[in-house]
Amino acid sequence: MVFQSSTYGKVLVLDGVIQLTERDECAYQEMITHLPLCSIPNPKKVLVIGGGDGGVLREVSRHSSVEQIDICEIDKMVVDVSKQYFPDVAVGYDDPRVKLHIGDGVAFLKAVPEGTYDAIIVDSSDPIGPAQELFEKPFFESVAKALRPGGVVCTQAESIWLHMHIIEDIVANCRQIFKGSVNYAWTTVPTYPSGVIGFMLCSTEGPLVDFKHPVNPIDKDECCCKSKRPLKFYNSEIHSAAFCLPSFAKKVIESKP
Amino acid sequence: MVFQSSTYGKVLVLDGVIQLTERDECAYQEMITHLPLCSIPNPKKVLVIGGGDGGVLREVSRHSSVEQIDICEIDKMVVDVSKQYFPDVAVGYDDPRVKLHIGDGVAFLKAVPEGTYDAIIVDSSDPIGPAQELFEKPFFESVAKALRPGGVVCTQAESIWLHMHIIEDIVANCRQIFKGSVNYAWTTVPTYPSGVIGFMLCSTEGPLVDFKHPVNPIDKDECCCKSKRPLKFYNSEIHSAAFCLPSFAKKVIESKP
Repeated sequence: MVFQSSTYGKVLVLDGVIQLTERDECAYQEMITHLPLCSIPNPKKVLVIGGGDGGVLREVSRHSSVEQIDICEIDKMVVDVSKQYFPDVAVGYDDPRVKLHIGDGVAFLKAVPEGTYDAIIVDSSDPIGPAQELFEKPFFESVAKALRPGGVVCTQAESIWLHMHIIEDIVANCRQIFKGSVNYAWTTVPTYPSGVIGFMLCSTEGPLVDFKHPVNPIDKDECCCKSKRPLKFYNSEIHSAAFCLPSFAKKVIESKP
Repeated sequence: MVFQSSTYGKVLVLDGVIQLTERDECAYQEMITHLPLCSIPNPKKVLVIGGGDGGVLREVSRHSSVEQIDICEIDKMVVDVSKQYFPDVAVGYDDPRVKLHIGDGVAFLKAVPEGTYDAIIVDSSDPIGPAQELFEKPFFESVAKALRPGGVVCTQAESIWLHMHIIEDIVANCRQIFKGSVNYAWTTVPTYPSGVIGFMLCSTEGPLVDFKHPVNPIDKDECCCKSKRPLKFYNSEIHSAAFCLPSFAKKVIESKP
């Protein structure tokens, strides 16, 4: 469903859940993309799982070091609806580095040769229904395998206010599978439940990634695509701040083995 | 109005606007209180304007250096309703250092001798209706006068997502009146419009206050009132992080003369 709201502009809804609005999509798309990509030097090959609306692609394409952007979206209708109603989001597809694969992300990942990607971004819906597998251990194992040593993944990881039990499980799974860094970050997205959304940021064994201190700043936004709007939300300070957790969340997340 | 919600516990509503819920009140009360009080060494005299529910008092009373806590609330019914339905919030009134004044905060402040308080916390409702004066220049002038040199004020200052035009005006007013530091911070409160709320943190001329780097940590929560629950939300990291703004807000707030 697509509708026009009075405060947040056009809204995209899937299975009764708000996916994005024109007003606040910048926070989600910029954070889920630049938290991982600004944490490693010169990302070249990037895979997006989900994110059919194109917003993550738009953000990835700000990084001039990137040579290849693969996206695997299960629902072609999301792509079509986004192109029709959300041109400022779907603009991500205009980048010639983007290659769209319509299909199941889990199957796609299994077929990826080991060590292919510098970064994988999992822009999924909630872990109930079609996206459930994207929060389970076998999926994280495929992600780790598809990443180069010291490669990074960023996955949508629910709300600290509402889903601490889910987050606990995701963190525990990730700590078992990713032998580099495992961190939780969050940001404000007014139209998501409880007004916040979190991200799991993990790296594979190899060159150590310090997610809290970005090494690949994009603040100046000197990207290759001058036609695009400047960053609205992300900057290096908010990058580091995103890893500071309220005490109730810190206690649970940092106590996980 | 008070009602029981399925996700957020009991909810207090004034004039159709949610004031607090059991689930997320910790974020608001802890941040509006400890952002100012942890930014100065040994606060002794504290004034709360509004905040009749008692939640800010509960937080102020964690600070063992504090000797006197005055509160001026215009609406006695808020106090009574809070004591009846929100005992974990109204517990703030149990502290013997607290003195409750029922009346108009603007008038109360005018009668305060110059330089009385180390810190003033303005826990007001929105700037439409009874609280409007609390966002205007004459009020900020009274606040500045009632503070000692290098004293601090923290006022509720709306949402960066929805009220940038109001925030712009508040920042401009504060920069004219407070000759020490003037900063904007924000935090997540799911049940407030857009899921965030901001605070203006200002200090008067005198010893310089660096709000971004707390000098009076309370993380260990070694307070004088052992009967109270530990901090749920606030810690020193989230204190500093609260001052990191999204680019769209930074541009407006930091460009104000």
